[in-house]
Amino acid sequence: MYFASDNAGIAHPEVMAAVNDANKGYALGYGLDNLTQDTVAQIRAIFEAPEALVYLVPTGTAANALALACLAQPYETIFCAPMAHIQEDECGAPEFYSGAKLSLVGNTDKIQPDDFTAEIERSLARGFQGIKPGALSLSQVTEFGQIYSVDEIKALSDIAHAHQLGVHLDGARFANAMVALDVSPAEMSWKAGVDAVSFGATKNGCFGVEAVILFDPAKAVEFEARRKRGGHLMSKHRYLAAQMQGYLANDLWTRSAARSNATCARLVKALRSIDEVEFDSEPQANVIFCNISVDAHQRLVDAGAMYSVIGEADQRVSIRLVCDWALKDAHIDQFLKILSDLA
Amino acid sequence: MYFASDNAGIAHPEVMAAVNDANKGYALGYGLDNLTQDTVAQIRAIFEAPEALVYLVPTGTAANALALACLAQPYETIFCAPMAHIQEDECGAPEFYSGAKLSLVGNTDKIQPDDFTAEIERSLARGFQGIKPGALSLSQVTEFGQIYSVDEIKALSDIAHAHQLGVHLDGARFANAMVALDVSPAEMSWKAGVDAVSFGATKNGCFGVEAVILFDPAKAVEFEARRKRGGHLMSKHRYLAAQMQGYLANDLWTRSAARSNATCARLVKALRSIDEVEFDSEPQANVIFCNISVDAHQRLVDAGAMYSVIGEADQRVSIRLVCDWALKDAHIDQFLKILSDLA
Amino acid sequence: MYFASDNAGIAHPEVMAAVNDANKGYALGYGLDNLTQDTVAQIRAIFEAPEALVYLVPTGTAANALALACLAQPYETIFCAPMAHIQEDECGAPEFYSGAKLSLVGNTDKIQPDDFTAEIERSLARGFQGIKPGALSLSQVTEFGQIYSVDEIKALSDIAHAHQLGVHLDGARFANAMVALDVSPAEMSWKAGVDAVSFGATKNGCFGVEAVILFDPAKAVEFEARRKRGGHLMSKHRYLAAQMQGYLANDLWTRSAARSNATCARLVKALRSIDEVEFDSEPQANVIFCNISVDAHQRLVDAGAMYSVIGEADQRVSIRLVCDWALKDAHIDQFLKILSDLA
Amino acid sequence: MYFASDNAGIAHPEVMAAVNDANKGYALGYGLDNLTQDTVAQIRAIFEAPEALVYLVPTGTAANALALACLAQPYETIFCAPMAHIQEDECGAPEFYSGAKLSLVGNTDKIQPDDFTAEIERSLARGFQGIKPGALSLSQVTEFGQIYSVDEIKALSDIAHAHQLGVHLDGARFANAMVALDVSPAEMSWKAGVDAVSFGATKNGCFGVEAVILFDPAKAVEFEARRKRGGHLMSKHRYLAAQMQGYLANDLWTRSAARSNATCARLVKALRSIDEVEFDSEPQANVIFCNISVDAHQRLVDAGAMYSVIGEADQRVSIRLVCDWALKDAHIDQFLKILSDLA
Repeated sequence: MYFASDNAGIAHPEVMAAVNDANKGYALGYGLDNLTQDTVAQIRAIFEAPEALVYLVPTGTAANALALACLAQPYETIFCAPMAHIQEDECGAPEFYSGAKLSLVGNTDKIQPDDFTAEIERSLARGFQGIKPGALSLSQVTEFGQIYSVDEIKALSDIAHAHQLGVHLDGARFANAMVALDVSPAEMSWKAGVDAVSFGATKNGCFGVEAVILFDPAKAVEFEARRKRGGHLMSKHRYLAAQMQGYLANDLWTRSAARSNATCARLVKALRSIDEVEFDSEPQANVIFCNISVDAHQRLVDAGAMYSVIGEADQRVSIRLVCDWALKDAHIDQFLKILSDLA
Repeated sequence: MYFASDNAGIAHPEVMAAVNDANKGYALGYGLDNLTQDTVAQIRAIFEAPEALVYLVPTGTAANALALACLAQPYETIFCAPMAHIQEDECGAPEFYSGAKLSLVGNTDKIQPDDFTAEIERSLARGFQGIKPGALSLSQVTEFGQIYSVDEIKALSDIAHAHQLGVHLDGARFANAMVALDVSPAEMSWKAGVDAVSFGATKNGCFGVEAVILFDPAKAVEFEARRKRGGHLMSKHRYLAAQMQGYLANDLWTRSAARSNATCARLVKALRSIDEVEFDSEPQANVIFCNISVDAHQRLVDAGAMYSVIGEADQRVSIRLVCDWALKDAHIDQFLKILSDLA
Repeated sequence: MYFASDNAGIAHPEVMAAVNDANKGYALGYGLDNLTQDTVAQIRAIFEAPEALVYLVPTGTAANALALACLAQPYETIFCAPMAHIQEDECGAPEFYSGAKLSLVGNTDKIQPDDFTAEIERSLARGFQGIKPGALSLSQVTEFGQIYSVDEIKALSDIAHAHQLGVHLDGARFANAMVALDVSPAEMSWKAGVDAVSFGATKNGCFGVEAVILFDPAKAVEFEARRKRGGHLMSKHRYLAAQMQGYLANDLWTRSAARSNATCARLVKALRSIDEVEFDSEPQANVIFCNISVDAHQRLVDAGAMYSVIGEADQRVSIRLVCDWALKDAHIDQFLKILSDLA
Repeated sequence: MYFASDNAGIAHPEVMAAVNDANKGYALGYGLDNLTQDTVAQIRAIFEAPEALVYLVPTGTAANALALACLAQPYETIFCAPMAHIQEDECGAPEFYSGAKLSLVGNTDKIQPDDFTAEIERSLARGFQGIKPGALSLSQVTEFGQIYSVDEIKALSDIAHAHQLGVHLDGARFANAMVALDVSPAEMSWKAGVDAVSFGATKNGCFGVEAVILFDPAKAVEFEARRKRGGHLMSKHRYLAAQMQGYLANDLWTRSAARSNATCARLVKALRSIDEVEFDSEPQANVIFCNISVDAHQRLVDAGAMYSVIGEADQRVSIRLVCDWALKDAHIDQFLKILSDLA
């Protein structure tokens, strides 16, 4: 019963097969190999963005930090939600790579347009003493499992662009959001005003690869030099590309996301019928935030269930349940049974 | 006939097997998994350094830059050879991670003790206006294929330590040097005064993993935070560990290095009997620097031989030939035949 | 009627006299001159801190940023109030010099101990993915004109030290706070647990000098190298020292602060009797935050009054009035008369 | 007998008078005051560059580092002479502000065009692994007292611009060089291809002010934000401007430089007739590099002469003699007498 994270599971067998297939013959290093070139072309096609610059890196933190370094200058600030991964979980990597500051917008998981406008204006009001607005970063899926609609992304991008700010989408769970919204990659990115995407693959089936997609070449200055300077240019680059090939081939990426979302929906539906469980927010993708009694928590833990504890108060435990693509129905059943038995 | 680099070949089948083996079940992320813990223990044992801090990262540039960030402060300088990889081929990564400067010592591939002492003294003579001495970085094997003897490393470390400087060994080809010297890992590192090693595995059989080994905990402050801040903490960490496991198991790492060195030695011996070829330095590991006529170069290229061209002058072409562990005897024979036919 | 800032006035004639006096003969550069050495000794004596490291720099932003770079590592965070000068008005200088992040504590001008503890715990809870606690920075006087009591500073320092965090005091208006509290420099700094002080002199009579006082040598590593690297080591250093000499001689610094505080108190008292004026907070030093009607604001501006407008809502204008040491009684009378005439 | 440095003397009385004059009334802070605006206009007029961006900072290191941060990106390198002040005497400030590396060109005090071209080509040859060419920095007067002719500057600028590199002139002794060459400020800067000048005033009569002049607005991105972020925006800015006003008024700056150059020429002429003295290079401005016997050195030191010792070998002492604008004839006579008496 593993609901702790979508980075604890295995790589998908189709991804591993692609990696094994790639392990033959000599290939140019540093991304000059054919497999990498093909992967770049494939991502451009999927995103309907023939001019986009596409780069592969081994981690999501690298993808976010390097993308943001292209969008924000060292004397600027990057707007994000207070609970954004780039603020809370990357140990300062975005600041390290860009030199920029982070400014926290409002106090909601999904950034509200009014809060965003207010924070830009507050920044500008500091004049030459304050830090200048530089970029906007959105997480899709958000850290609390919510999804921005295409219109919501567009509304925020419009505000950003009105102030000449680039827009970054942290898409560690890009596929889960896209499948849930039932839109195309382009619709959820550049058509909605996004300038740069961290296109996650690690959580959804690979073992260590993310793509950075920069739609606006003018905002992609020297990504390559920055990547090398950050130590993120893999010499045997084909093994990044092979993972991504396996991930994109035969729609594995959308199949995996659809499966995790469906598994999650089944779990949500069942949990709704259990009095014990209170939802902290409405699950929209493959992540659930809810609270249960201390007693229920104890039984689940005793039975070997693994998940993150967010907090504890008044005899209730707030937990996060992540459904990854490999989660077994049997484990969900077992999890539900423990909760049902309590009632 | 691929002599261009030891990063263009495949991962060793035993390494791939280890990665495939690791692809089952859930495992904690971020290096908390058992496979990583075992790997760390194994490296400590191999280096006879039970207290050493050991970390895995995906690239050699990351290994060097992060290790150096532990040894040198932002207002200090790192001494290295003018042709050191950290100076010439990492696009400023060591400076980015450490904040320190690089100071080039002498004009030889292997740093000479007198040059090192002179450069430290020159730095100190600048007083508060100059940059302070911070660390020494040696490449073993060097960029021109040479090997420091254990005594030579010790002599340089002694000078460094006399000035309270930490010593870093860029061991992208650690195994090749160690096998050539016929010494133990400990003898070529901490017993010779080395404080931090970038222990390369990518060039010698893996597809993307290097270990940073920090022997002196006092000089390892917050490697973990720096690694995360640099985006180099892989979430599905077991796939780094699995590569390293395959690399260390059954002495694959020394077997591979012994094979590349032997292949290289065979090639060197044969080349010596060909008048056409002039050696630019005495090959000591698995890399050869020599020069051939323009005509010979053209024929080799036409026949599909791949290698790096260092420069061209007076109808002679200086080239670098790298023999990786997978190089086939048939390719060496073919290469030699083209040169012999010229005579 | 100039209430806009305490950095728009002249340098005190006694300070200018000291600078003119210093303008004779040769003197060693870079702070090795006698005047600088004397000044350092004098500050140590005033602070009863014979071992303290004392450095002069030309701006308050430099003082804060350099002091904080000694207290926090690049992978750590500095806790401060959301409206702290280091967060709002230094264009990212503290982050630039230290490499650290800023974490905003609570939403009050004066940091509350519970908020501080909560924020530390929140940081620690992020584990290796989050940023590590590094230092605490307090503004005394605060940005909204409030003063921490010695006990309040001590309570916050105790929390900081319990977590091994250094404590920095941004004392741009150190003298105003100290005079208002009627305590000694030592009582308001190291005796209350402060590790580093930015000791402001520019706002209170000089034209460009601040001292950084580092009480704990272990937390003062390489201030000198950092200062030089930041371009803040003045070569003709005696002119920084001369200002500070003039500032400290004959208690000019406390006389000036006492005068601004008294002027401010007189203004506050008079404003209390005017219905038109509502105080936004209780003035404690030489800065007043209040709101007046749009009509009153217009008349004041028309009459040439200069002050900062904080915001405007519901026909009321929130303003900041700063009383510097040189403010003339006649100007206060004129200002009050305009407001009284309205009634 | 003070020949040690041109930063140990007093500020010129005319500069001090201007500062004292400025010390009245209120003035807007942060450079918005009239005096600053006038100074900027005056510098633009002097340089015949009505569109140039002009900023004042308190130190030469700040001027150089901030100017270079505008010309070079973090993943680029700045070419300079091996003995350049930015390389040897600024403790890493240029790297800190720009993020860029420094690449040392040739081994001469004045950069040679061929060496410069070779170094650019060497950088480019490293490809994506190496650091990219970013800017060129020249010292005028050089660190060893030499002067680039206008044609020499132009030749180097042409090479730089052919590779899209910006050109920076470290003009700590700008006036001395300009007077020696008998050219206009424009001729020695933008007309010769210079994009940014650090226009020194501290060594030649002020106590702490330098101007950064950026001729190409496209290469001046956000100097203001970078200056503030570096802590170099003086709040009471008029005191920087007043120094510069005094410096420029009535040609004080060229008068001072002419005087130091003439004093130096007189000293050189006299030294030539003393067998004891050997010149290490041909003095061209106000700095002399020569060597004398150990015995002569001892007598000079005993008599209270102050100068820098560069090195000592074979019973000869290499020394640097700087003639500042305030150097008295009597001191030169005394200095010469000691040397003559030896003969």
